[in-house]
Amino acid sequence: MNILITAGGTTEKIDNVRHLTNQATGRLGKELAEALKHDQVTIDYIYGPQAILPTMAEPTSIIFHPIRSVMDLYDTMEHLLTEKNFDFVVHSMAVSDYKLSHIANEQSLATTLAAEISQKQPQSEADLIDLIQQSLVQAHRFPQPTSKKIDSSADELILFLEKAPKVIQSIKKWQPNTTLIGFKLLVGVTEEHLVEVAQNSLTKNHADYILANDLEHITDISHLALLVDSQGIAERFTTKVEIAQGLRQVMLNKKEN
Amino acid sequence: MNILITAGGTTEKIDNVRHLTNQATGRLGKELAEALKHDQVTIDYIYGPQAILPTMAEPTSIIFHPIRSVMDLYDTMEHLLTEKNFDFVVHSMAVSDYKLSHIANEQSLATTLAAEISQKQPQSEADLIDLIQQSLVQAHRFPQPTSKKIDSSADELILFLEKAPKVIQSIKKWQPNTTLIGFKLLVGVTEEHLVEVAQNSLTKNHADYILANDLEHITDISHLALLVDSQGIAERFTTKVEIAQGLRQVMLNKKEN
Repeated sequence: MNILITAGGTTEKIDNVRHLTNQATGRLGKELAEALKHDQVTIDYIYGPQAILPTMAEPTSIIFHPIRSVMDLYDTMEHLLTEKNFDFVVHSMAVSDYKLSHIANEQSLATTLAAEISQKQPQSEADLIDLIQQSLVQAHRFPQPTSKKIDSSADELILFLEKAPKVIQSIKKWQPNTTLIGFKLLVGVTEEHLVEVAQNSLTKNHADYILANDLEHITDISHLALLVDSQGIAERFTTKVEIAQGLRQVMLNKKEN
Repeated sequence: MNILITAGGTTEKIDNVRHLTNQATGRLGKELAEALKHDQVTIDYIYGPQAILPTMAEPTSIIFHPIRSVMDLYDTMEHLLTEKNFDFVVHSMAVSDYKLSHIANEQSLATTLAAEISQKQPQSEADLIDLIQQSLVQAHRFPQPTSKKIDSSADELILFLEKAPKVIQSIKKWQPNTTLIGFKLLVGVTEEHLVEVAQNSLTKNHADYILANDLEHITDISHLALLVDSQGIAERFTTKVEIAQGLRQVMLNKKEN
């Protein structure tokens, strides 16, 4: 059985020293891989910079793929999913929704916008809103992110982030027949809302299961989570070990049928 | 001998999941603490989330102070430096120059700016620049950072960062008689420029030494660094172990005199 697991968080480079990171320990991915260590599996394990790694009984049963940014993740996933058949993809990584577009400061931004407004002379407030919004969207007008270290003499710094590609949405395009287990992490919501969001994610991403959890119900010793499928809540878990054992069982059951 | 060491990097919270981090392993602080492990020292060790920690011969000779943000660091340093006498402060932490001020998106920002311009009707382009810049500075006009998780449905996100207090500038105010060893990390500069920047830092921060280094000359196995004092380059180092031994010797020599 071939399994692809993603774990940990992505990190977007701002300069050589500063990064925008998605905090994630990678413990869930580690627990799942270790739960499978005595099964007949080969695991491709994609992980972010801070992730703690699983130790397997047979080192040959796991292939590690370190990545940093969302685009690294996208490229690695595309490569693996178009080259190799996976029975399951467990996408537990905390992936940044955004990547850096450009960097400005208040003075550079004010100068750029004022020049645009003076030139175009919008006649109504609605036109003015449109013009400013258009100017803000046109990233190339602003100084591009330096490859070295940002000069920290400016009193302020404005980071423009843009949507990164949604990796989870591409998984079934790259490999339609795999079984996809996605993850959804919300913060401080009702169970009803969590299930609703998980089912939307299920539909939108063509996932087979979503492991839905709430950051406010995750501590060092407990981890409440719901395994959601198209019917609703399929299972409830209270610790990371339970989640790992539960997902393992889902895989073994599915493989037998 | 009492020594205060800071190591690792700070991390500024954007929401419960996302952070702006200053990448630093904390290895130099660790090496220095371990180089001192057989000396008669007590070390207060302030470290950031990702820092790897030193192991001492006598666990009682080190007191660990974990911190996360620049403001945590500021508060912890102020507390320690006003409560306890330190012979040396070795400030090797990579401290963020900025902290989050507020979050906007292009639409909310365009709407706010357009309303301001329509109301104030600036007559010249210079006035328009001033007005936009003023509006951008007034952080309270924009939606404040959420304490939970940012809604990622927006196509873009604009992070406004503001200058964080410069912790190093306060060290000699809190404790004028300590010996301060500061650090300066630049990227891809000439040695001449590195020394110049280090000496400016020396003066501005009332530091006694600056350990100046260039990210492009730091690898897993080598770490070029210059110890700069008011006279210029006092010493040259090529590895982290050499730096740690060199700083230890500076301390022991100074203590003997």
